[in-house]
Amino acid sequence: MTFDDLDDDLRLAFAEYERALMANDVPALDAAFADGPRTLRGDSSDVLVGHDAIAAFRAGRGGAPARTLLQVHTRSLGPDARVIVAQTRRADGMCGIQTQVWERSGGRWAITVAHVSAAPTPVATPTSPDDPIWRVAPGPEPLARGGDGPLTNPRVAVKDLFAVAGQAIGAGNPVWLSEAPIESRHAAAVEALLAAGADVTGIAHTDELAFSLSGSNAHYGDTPNPVAPQCLSGGSSSGPAAAVAAGLADIGLGTDTAGSIRVPASYCGLYGLRTTHGVIDRTGLVGLAPSFDSVGLLTRDAGLLARAGAALLPPQSVEPITRVVVAAELVELLDPAARESFRAAVQALTLCGAASGTVLPPPVPGALTYPDSGGLDAVFTAFRTVQTAQAWDTHGELLTAHPDALSPEIAARFHAGRDIDSATRQSAQRLLDAMRAELLRSLPPGTVLALPSTSSAAPRRDTDPALLESVRQKTLRLTCLASLAGLPALSIPAVRADTRPIGLCLVAAPGQDHSLLAFASAQTDPL
Amino acid sequence: MTFDDLDDDLRLAFAEYERALMANDVPALDAAFADGPRTLRGDSSDVLVGHDAIAAFRAGRGGAPARTLLQVHTRSLGPDARVIVAQTRRADGMCGIQTQVWERSGGRWAITVAHVSAAPTPVATPTSPDDPIWRVAPGPEPLARGGDGPLTNPRVAVKDLFAVAGQAIGAGNPVWLSEAPIESRHAAAVEALLAAGADVTGIAHTDELAFSLSGSNAHYGDTPNPVAPQCLSGGSSSGPAAAVAAGLADIGLGTDTAGSIRVPASYCGLYGLRTTHGVIDRTGLVGLAPSFDSVGLLTRDAGLLARAGAALLPPQSVEPITRVVVAAELVELLDPAARESFRAAVQALTLCGAASGTVLPPPVPGALTYPDSGGLDAVFTAFRTVQTAQAWDTHGELLTAHPDALSPEIAARFHAGRDIDSATRQSAQRLLDAMRAELLRSLPPGTVLALPSTSSAAPRRDTDPALLESVRQKTLRLTCLASLAGLPALSIPAVRADTRPIGLCLVAAPGQDHSLLAFASAQTDPL
Repeated sequence: MTFDDLDDDLRLAFAEYERALMANDVPALDAAFADGPRTLRGDSSDVLVGHDAIAAFRAGRGGAPARTLLQVHTRSLGPDARVIVAQTRRADGMCGIQTQVWERSGGRWAITVAHVSAAPTPVATPTSPDDPIWRVAPGPEPLARGGDGPLTNPRVAVKDLFAVAGQAIGAGNPVWLSEAPIESRHAAAVEALLAAGADVTGIAHTDELAFSLSGSNAHYGDTPNPVAPQCLSGGSSSGPAAAVAAGLADIGLGTDTAGSIRVPASYCGLYGLRTTHGVIDRTGLVGLAPSFDSVGLLTRDAGLLARAGAALLPPQSVEPITRVVVAAELVELLDPAARESFRAAVQALTLCGAASGTVLPPPVPGALTYPDSGGLDAVFTAFRTVQTAQAWDTHGELLTAHPDALSPEIAARFHAGRDIDSATRQSAQRLLDAMRAELLRSLPPGTVLALPSTSSAAPRRDTDPALLESVRQKTLRLTCLASLAGLPALSIPAVRADTRPIGLCLVAAPGQDHSLLAFASAQTDPL
Repeated sequence: MTFDDLDDDLRLAFAEYERALMANDVPALDAAFADGPRTLRGDSSDVLVGHDAIAAFRAGRGGAPARTLLQVHTRSLGPDARVIVAQTRRADGMCGIQTQVWERSGGRWAITVAHVSAAPTPVATPTSPDDPIWRVAPGPEPLARGGDGPLTNPRVAVKDLFAVAGQAIGAGNPVWLSEAPIESRHAAAVEALLAAGADVTGIAHTDELAFSLSGSNAHYGDTPNPVAPQCLSGGSSSGPAAAVAAGLADIGLGTDTAGSIRVPASYCGLYGLRTTHGVIDRTGLVGLAPSFDSVGLLTRDAGLLARAGAALLPPQSVEPITRVVVAAELVELLDPAARESFRAAVQALTLCGAASGTVLPPPVPGALTYPDSGGLDAVFTAFRTVQTAQAWDTHGELLTAHPDALSPEIAARFHAGRDIDSATRQSAQRLLDAMRAELLRSLPPGTVLALPSTSSAAPRRDTDPALLESVRQKTLRLTCLASLAGLPALSIPAVRADTRPIGLCLVAAPGQDHSLLAFASAQTDPL
């Protein structure tokens, strides 16, 4: 994966155009288009011919809608000509496409042909009341009403692992639910969102005991994927993701141990934040593997994610992101058909600061350094060892007391952790510690690692189980890195495989949650 | 004006793409796009990445809407790269824009980047019942009901120069109207449209005695221009044009002596046909200058124009158009800001046969040959001499009997014809005869002359009168050629000046009306 189509002059010219567009800086926009009668600007319905006609149009329209650059494709057409195709997501909910031909003349790059168009974001497939999204569905009144705060009443779908006062926790398992007490207090994370002004409107399904990434639950059924019918929703924060993607809630509150926020965000086309491990109080939350369990959020747009994140997260020093690195071996885990789209999404990131007047250097391609010759596979195996052992620590008692309570597939995952001996576990933990050190070294504050959130778009529900397992194994190799190092990770719905979304995941140094949120929402909603 | 950006191979490749698109020839479309993962196709809401994704989309969609190419802009980006921007008008009423980057590799041109978008045609500004469009406005019942025929009830607005049984003819002058008898028979052209199935729904205003191109009438007011508010509608077939442009009628039946169909078609964004002089029976029609008076039609789309033309015209041998010529001195009469758009409209014409599997050679640039050293100016002066003299022949009696009946401006035009001596008139006629012979030589059947229908888009109504007169003089230099030679002329709404339309006019050999109609409607409505 190389990023060599844009030279520095053109990167700056493109960024300056984006800044000027967002600021409606008409003289700068006029300067970005080549002079003369042959410059073209097409929009949905007309072609303006000549710089004068384009300038007259611009002077009269009062600015363009705010937007985020999701993908920036660049192609060289010779030494002095490039085409740049940008896919944008506008604050008004429209999807935009902008094709520009840039030509260099007299050492200066200018746009000679442009075509812009926008269309409404495709409507999510309506869900049915029978679809397994909610364990406690929204009623006429919220389950818990928020106070006065910056979140003016967005509806929160809470994953069925968090305590909501007056409700039991179901944890995706009917036996668990039947034995669960009615909670007297909200979980700390729930309390924080309520205090910020949100309402808890429903309790949404989780994969069984959160030990799955698929969005399936043998007891309650497959959670629907509103943006990719017939496909899995991803999990284990499956219910919150489906509720948000379907527009039934605005914020999904979930957890991420090994990808349980990032995977459903990726499959359902949502923004998803896994927070830095340990920065958010986990009181009132049913865990899985405490070394890795993190609270997370799901939304349809970056601006709300940043506001909801601000409600949950402690104050942090925000280090602006100035460097994006891409590891080849991680991109190779991605479906080949989606790699070019991933490349364009990464390209967009470095040009994304354009609206705030900055442009980052091109993405840095390379590879991560691994602690031993086993590379990523050895790291992944170590992660699974420790995660599974901790999962048995957490829930072994339940499995022993109720041997038939769990579905066979999930029960098998827990049982795999029962017999891990202490030496194996310690050896795995040492490898994880070494890998964590390596990641901290590679990702100082201000740097992000860009990788696919999942190895593919949402698989069809009728996919052969063996193939599904192979998809899961690849995805876990991607998700385990932030998990093992306790790093914050933000999934942006910027990559496509045909028409299905895939997340672009940004992983940063511990405590850089706000930096990630600011980076993702820089253009539509500056923090 | 040169047309040198596309070599023959690329012209053929583009035409083959258009043919394949209209035929939904999926293998040919797949072949037109470059192989590999980096080929891009953006539409309004998404970017498909890679040939495979594009091919999968195409295989699933079942074809693109039929359309006419209005403008084809081409730009060279080096020896092996071109960008082609096409503006289309779709049969479903949408305006389309298609931007393509073509690159040559291994001697073969293929599309590497495409962006297509479409939007509804802008809605015409609603007219008010008080606007001077109708002399006899449509009521609950048509003025005359059509029979069974191929024109399934389109509503005809008849210019107030044609006899409609049961109505008087007003001719744009109240004194004329006050003295006019009630007609007992329809004019021949009205009868022909009724026989073909159309209904006459109203009688629409004309400029005074048809001796004006502006769309103004001192007695009745300025006809509105539904597509360019604050601007003149053009005339003298002003009422039919406004009625059709506003959607109040489907067909405008008018006349064209020196541009009275072509000018309002140009200003109001309509298709307009001036028929070959003499081929349509002028019985029941108030004339102006009999050597030049021709019946004409106005519609919003090429298909209906062809069907209405078929109802009016006698059978003719249709010679396919295979050659488009452009005279530089005529293009120089056009507003400079619109010339590039004109160039693109002409380029589209030669690629327009693409849907039927043919592609014409590039437009032939050059100049017309004029009979004497005075060039076009001398020809225009001669035309005005003969037209004005004939106008006095036709209406001098009215002006003498009612010296104050006409507005001073129009009366002055008639009076200018009163005193032309016979020698001057004969000399002018000789020059016109010579120019006619030259035009017939230059425009054998199968060849069309492409020129702007008017020298500018519709002028604002508040334009300084001296400037308006200069615009009129330039436009008459363009329109007089078909008039003096009795040639058919078809105006296509394909040129733009900012957002206002200008007609692209095609002039052909006498009797080639059907060929022009077939050429203009080849893609949306094959004859």
